[in-house]
Amino acid sequence: MIKLFCVYLLISFSSTFEFIFKPGPLVPASKGEIWPKPQQEDKLDERFFSILPTFFYFNSIGNRCNTLTEALNRYRKLIIFNNRHIKEIYYKARSCYEGGDSNFLGYLTSIEVDLTGVCNDEEYPSFEMKEEYVVNVTSTVQRISSDTIWGILRGLETFSQLIYLSDDYSCHRIETTVIHDYPRFAHRGLLLDTSRHYIPKKSILKLIETMSYNKFNVFHWHITDDYSFPYVSKTFPQMSDKGAFHPTLMTYDQNFVNEVQEYARKRGIRVLAEFDTPGHTLSWGLGNPDLLTACHNVPQLEWGPINPIKNTTYEFIFKLFEEIKSTYKDQYTHLGGDEVDFSCWKSNPEINQWMAENGIVGDYIALQSYYIQKLINYVDSLGLNSIVWEEVFTNGVTLPKSTVVNVWISDDPKTTLKQVTEAGHPTIISSYWYLDILKTGGDWLKFYNADPQDFDGTEEQKKLVLGGEACMWSEVVNEYNLESRVWPRASVAAERFWSPPDDPKTEQNMAELWPVASRLQEQTCRMNRRGVEAQPPSGPSVCF
Amino acid sequence: MIKLFCVYLLISFSSTFEFIFKPGPLVPASKGEIWPKPQQEDKLDERFFSILPTFFYFNSIGNRCNTLTEALNRYRKLIIFNNRHIKEIYYKARSCYEGGDSNFLGYLTSIEVDLTGVCNDEEYPSFEMKEEYVVNVTSTVQRISSDTIWGILRGLETFSQLIYLSDDYSCHRIETTVIHDYPRFAHRGLLLDTSRHYIPKKSILKLIETMSYNKFNVFHWHITDDYSFPYVSKTFPQMSDKGAFHPTLMTYDQNFVNEVQEYARKRGIRVLAEFDTPGHTLSWGLGNPDLLTACHNVPQLEWGPINPIKNTTYEFIFKLFEEIKSTYKDQYTHLGGDEVDFSCWKSNPEINQWMAENGIVGDYIALQSYYIQKLINYVDSLGLNSIVWEEVFTNGVTLPKSTVVNVWISDDPKTTLKQVTEAGHPTIISSYWYLDILKTGGDWLKFYNADPQDFDGTEEQKKLVLGGEACMWSEVVNEYNLESRVWPRASVAAERFWSPPDDPKTEQNMAELWPVASRLQEQTCRMNRRGVEAQPPSGPSVCF
Repeated sequence: MIKLFCVYLLISFSSTFEFIFKPGPLVPASKGEIWPKPQQEDKLDERFFSILPTFFYFNSIGNRCNTLTEALNRYRKLIIFNNRHIKEIYYKARSCYEGGDSNFLGYLTSIEVDLTGVCNDEEYPSFEMKEEYVVNVTSTVQRISSDTIWGILRGLETFSQLIYLSDDYSCHRIETTVIHDYPRFAHRGLLLDTSRHYIPKKSILKLIETMSYNKFNVFHWHITDDYSFPYVSKTFPQMSDKGAFHPTLMTYDQNFVNEVQEYARKRGIRVLAEFDTPGHTLSWGLGNPDLLTACHNVPQLEWGPINPIKNTTYEFIFKLFEEIKSTYKDQYTHLGGDEVDFSCWKSNPEINQWMAENGIVGDYIALQSYYIQKLINYVDSLGLNSIVWEEVFTNGVTLPKSTVVNVWISDDPKTTLKQVTEAGHPTIISSYWYLDILKTGGDWLKFYNADPQDFDGTEEQKKLVLGGEACMWSEVVNEYNLESRVWPRASVAAERFWSPPDDPKTEQNMAELWPVASRLQEQTCRMNRRGVEAQPPSGPSVCF
Repeated sequence: MIKLFCVYLLISFSSTFEFIFKPGPLVPASKGEIWPKPQQEDKLDERFFSILPTFFYFNSIGNRCNTLTEALNRYRKLIIFNNRHIKEIYYKARSCYEGGDSNFLGYLTSIEVDLTGVCNDEEYPSFEMKEEYVVNVTSTVQRISSDTIWGILRGLETFSQLIYLSDDYSCHRIETTVIHDYPRFAHRGLLLDTSRHYIPKKSILKLIETMSYNKFNVFHWHITDDYSFPYVSKTFPQMSDKGAFHPTLMTYDQNFVNEVQEYARKRGIRVLAEFDTPGHTLSWGLGNPDLLTACHNVPQLEWGPINPIKNTTYEFIFKLFEEIKSTYKDQYTHLGGDEVDFSCWKSNPEINQWMAENGIVGDYIALQSYYIQKLINYVDSLGLNSIVWEEVFTNGVTLPKSTVVNVWISDDPKTTLKQVTEAGHPTIISSYWYLDILKTGGDWLKFYNADPQDFDGTEEQKKLVLGGEACMWSEVVNEYNLESRVWPRASVAAERFWSPPDDPKTEQNMAELWPVASRLQEQTCRMNRRGVEAQPPSGPSVCF
């Protein structure tokens, strides 16, 4: 009855690839393929080890610290408890017996973990973090090695993904391979909006854990917006007392913010806080009524953006950003700046009088610039790097060259990227990876085919692309559909940010699409096995 | 960043309704409104009772049986454990103290349940079931009454929905009201496809339980299809041994089929089994290789529909339907018949030879008719009523008048409905309520605005509309996203099937849309409170 979908696939299969329409899963999962695809993998031959999960351990031969120990424990559990959700398979594969297969190299009971550089539990991941690593699984050497703890974390994920279940579900196997891997982009983000719906704490932590399965390294926390202010400020507790959906049940206090950062640090993930101003701040007005611009006869609006002409505004904002500086560990902070609606500013007599007195009569972009420049300068003085949404740049606000411009509007991102990088700004692009927009199925091909550096510009301009972000705006998600809406579609963005560029795939060329779809199916099953409610990416399927 | 959505709403609010864009939920939930909307509700005045959940019980004053007792226990738990997922609110509302409100009528400790007709635990719900009931909550009478157990079940659901949490979360209240209610349509179905993904048993039972919260009364179980055959046949166990995604972990055995029917019976829900033939049967060929038509040089197909020229085909199919008759309790069975692809029949020399010998050379519709008529006649001889997908009718297969035609194609359902009912067939319509098709958000307005009887026809023709079905084809859902994809969007279909017709709503007329949206938000929160992972229907929201 929705055969339309299948018929469509059927037609599209026809060009180059002898696809036979059969019972069973439409796209069977690959076995032991890595997601995101490594920069370099040399599969040596058909030989393989088997793993008896309960007899497997990591042999740490390099530098150590708690971060490493905890990571080894985490990945040991992921390996031991592989397939635990299907008891019959779990127990069968624990007592795997390999017969006389000539490719069988023996049971792999351990792998060396060699952290050659310093392991420092005080160090937070940063924009400059190095994530390069090597994984060797050969008949003579089995080792994960890296100069950095971040590289080891990525290598552990890769190693855990090499393990697959044999066709008869009886053994966990791992084939001989050598992987040398590092990310294409330094900034690989997932944005979560916790204002339009309150997202429970455990869902946020689980999202971050799942990010690590996909080698994301930036959790972009869009923590406040028009609808609610769930952040419990030390300096201004009334902001969440009045502005959250509930003052205690639906807030994130300092302990939790610290917990998130520590949890993310252990997984090599940065926490990028966004306190979006001067628009998207209606909920801020509940805790600080002086902060917003009163609208005068504007349809449907009583309050507008932050009032940029009052000294009290800056006293408040500067104190808030002082707190942000002391609370959040990352070198970067996201200042927002998107979608500032000028209608209330236009309607407000005091604002217009002030603008006349300051020689910018009628120029509301200049007023926005006035606000955002004061904010950027202050944030700069705190020693933080700023990221802003693209309108701040496209509206012509004068910005320091170091300010990162986050391109998000989907109309013509390539032109914007060209302009932003021509002006010398580093950039992060989100336009292509909006997770809230969904059709019937997995909707992942468009995510796969978008490339952050695909715009008209010089090599120098291309280098200014720091990376990209997938965005989970929460108008349409809460704790109940968050996980299935994010995964595995965000995984596809993650591959685009980590892996080498790839030619666009089409449903008309199944021969090329198929290997990607099979790996994505395996990554989906892998997340399901680890307890993540990832939805099916490509039609009828089955996971073991 | 997805403000587009909000801006859009903002614009659409502007016509007739003074909507102010504010922090907090976009559409606050109503309080104690019923979903689906009852045929008749007279809210008497502002007076209310409060309920101390742990001191509340049902006082059964009429006929009794186990079905009733179990239902009372079920609803007592739903009332007692209201809000249990938020402990702070749960405990607060358990010790509710009402102050000096002049509208406070006292604490309601019980409600009478008066089943005036026979209560028979052996009786299954049927197409003829009566579901009419009355709920009285006045200062003098508090009673749920009905002639039938099915009416009592609907009344219990309605009563439980009247209870709401006071604004300060301190008390569960219920306002005085008199409700006289009955369904607009006798057939109010939800289709679940368990072939394209295996849906775990507990998910099926939970779906049925949630159907009862929405007064659905038919679980249409599309149990097999091309991808897998999960039904464990007593007569032909090889069908699931070979045709299921896994022969033991991913099948539905007889015990489970019986459990589903018993579970559904207790909730006044019929189980309508569909074994779709002669197309959509690729997985059938794994267990019975003789059954399907071999394709001769058809691109991408080795096997086609069931082979209708072999005697062995009918031996198999007739035995299978004998088993279906003995396994499933409902008077109706769904024979499928949709999307039969003729290419394999066309390619097959034996088929063409047989057609020549039987005087229907080149007429594949006649071949399809030959098959489906034999099947319908046999099913008829078993004493079962048949339902078929619309192509069986539109292809011109001669059908008994009693055969129900299930209209599903979305191109022009009104013309099809006109033709089907002109021909005197009863009909069920699914075209408008395809749950797999989804845009960004709740996508429910189109479901609300579709009306089963909106086509060009006489009163007699309109009466042939038995009802409708919402369809959850499972190309894109499995256990992980099923619940949020179905709810609350299927609830909207449920209201269309139960409640009086309503004028179409638009986003341009918020004054009319708002009351529906608020009730739907309350129904969503209610399902969330009961542990159902319903997704947000209308943008930023909060549930307590």
